[in-house]
Amino acid sequence: MKFTKVQGLGNDFVLVNMKEVSREEEKNLTESLAELAIKICDRHFGIGADGLVLLRPSQKADIAMQIINSDGSEAEMCGNAIRCVAKYAYERGLFDKTTLQVETAAGIMVPELIIEGSAVAAVRVDMGVPRLEREQIPMTGPAGRVVNEPLEAEGKVYHITTVSMGNPHCIIFVPDVHAVPLENLGPVLETHNLFPRKTNVEFVQVLNDHEVRMRVWERGAGPTLACGTGACATAVAAALNGLTGRKVRVYLHAGPLDIEWAGDDRVYMTGPAQEVFTGNYPV
Amino acid sequence: MKFTKVQGLGNDFVLVNMKEVSREEEKNLTESLAELAIKICDRHFGIGADGLVLLRPSQKADIAMQIINSDGSEAEMCGNAIRCVAKYAYERGLFDKTTLQVETAAGIMVPELIIEGSAVAAVRVDMGVPRLEREQIPMTGPAGRVVNEPLEAEGKVYHITTVSMGNPHCIIFVPDVHAVPLENLGPVLETHNLFPRKTNVEFVQVLNDHEVRMRVWERGAGPTLACGTGACATAVAAALNGLTGRKVRVYLHAGPLDIEWAGDDRVYMTGPAQEVFTGNYPV
Repeated sequence: MKFTKVQGLGNDFVLVNMKEVSREEEKNLTESLAELAIKICDRHFGIGADGLVLLRPSQKADIAMQIINSDGSEAEMCGNAIRCVAKYAYERGLFDKTTLQVETAAGIMVPELIIEGSAVAAVRVDMGVPRLEREQIPMTGPAGRVVNEPLEAEGKVYHITTVSMGNPHCIIFVPDVHAVPLENLGPVLETHNLFPRKTNVEFVQVLNDHEVRMRVWERGAGPTLACGTGACATAVAAALNGLTGRKVRVYLHAGPLDIEWAGDDRVYMTGPAQEVFTGNYPV
Repeated sequence: MKFTKVQGLGNDFVLVNMKEVSREEEKNLTESLAELAIKICDRHFGIGADGLVLLRPSQKADIAMQIINSDGSEAEMCGNAIRCVAKYAYERGLFDKTTLQVETAAGIMVPELIIEGSAVAAVRVDMGVPRLEREQIPMTGPAGRVVNEPLEAEGKVYHITTVSMGNPHCIIFVPDVHAVPLENLGPVLETHNLFPRKTNVEFVQVLNDHEVRMRVWERGAGPTLACGTGACATAVAAALNGLTGRKVRVYLHAGPLDIEWAGDDRVYMTGPAQEVFTGNYPV
């Protein structure tokens, strides 16, 4: 089975174009997609990846993308994966246009390619409208937004701003992100009783009015190299607190993402995507 | 650059047959081998592996193998890698014989293929003569062997047997390997002042006179899925203590290795090797 290994900010995927899978290979794929993803994503016994991404024909859009995580669960959407898919589809000549309609389990997404010469330099993705009301995060407590509110954890007071980008984010501005004890504080805040569905946690250091540095504790995953929705939530929180404008470059462990909270209230994320190698996995 | 991803008990390698590297690719490889290995072995931004293995023509043997670890350092030899190399060379038709001479930085090794049908079922490797004298391990203290000797660490007494298979091993027999606090005890014993060059540490549960279960703390690497020299040292230690015969199956996290401490005093290790996928890495 032919595949292409891709990554966006270190979030890496095995991408399979189902059109390239032969009938015989399809017949041999007797295990469930969950089992196949677990096997393929194993970093010692398989190809190794955060997820398996399948490209299929779509009735409603240019192409459909299905993401199965390394634990076999299905992801509705992933900003890092969709950038890779858009770049792959363009560079392999699947479509001759720079704005692509991609069907996902979270609806139709419209990544936009930023071309330099004949190559894709970056991909811009519409990440939707941030939701700011307490019950939308969701958080317990009285109605209203949570901007720079005190929260006690581990005997200390932190000032939090909360934003939902489809998933909950709790943002804390700090003088130095590298001084934050992420491994201790992350799980405490993730499971704080203010957040009935738990939360992602972002620690953010403001560098100037258009650049910030972020470290993330992902809900259910712990510290990760990059989190697209976290970068979006961080930019929204920084603007809400008057710490930056609405165009912010967010530096993550693996590189920067450019976030714009546009006039139409939608958040646009621009970031890199890379093809690492191609391969053939026996099935 | 064409490559084949291989693994032996979860110890995984990117194998490149230098005969398949084109002149143009070779010209493009301007970085050092250390830099290339670091880049290629990265599990998020590269292919992902424990090491890069290069196959080259040899003047002295059938083929030469060079192993560069994921940190860019060079390994003299690796039992898991050489099994994969032998299987690859046979199944790709590089040689039509089942005993191969492989030149390594530790000398010429002679892996022997165990064939079932037309496929390689397992590979047997001569791992050399175990060294048992205290100064050969090396260990401080009076001359002689260390078999079931008490050692105090963290306020408790452990009974240790020490064996060198070219590298030092400290073996401790326990009633239940899963009850051992490997993460705490491993580093304490690894750096104990009895071992001037530090040591690998194996905790071993005897199942019967020909089977044992082993967990390993590797010197400089911590807990790993499998350690070939550790399995050899464990079998020798079990025989020295009269706990097993000289033919022992050692169960590791990722599967079994069959060890024989033969009449010629040499230790032979038989284990699996697997080709996982083939690929093309752009250079």
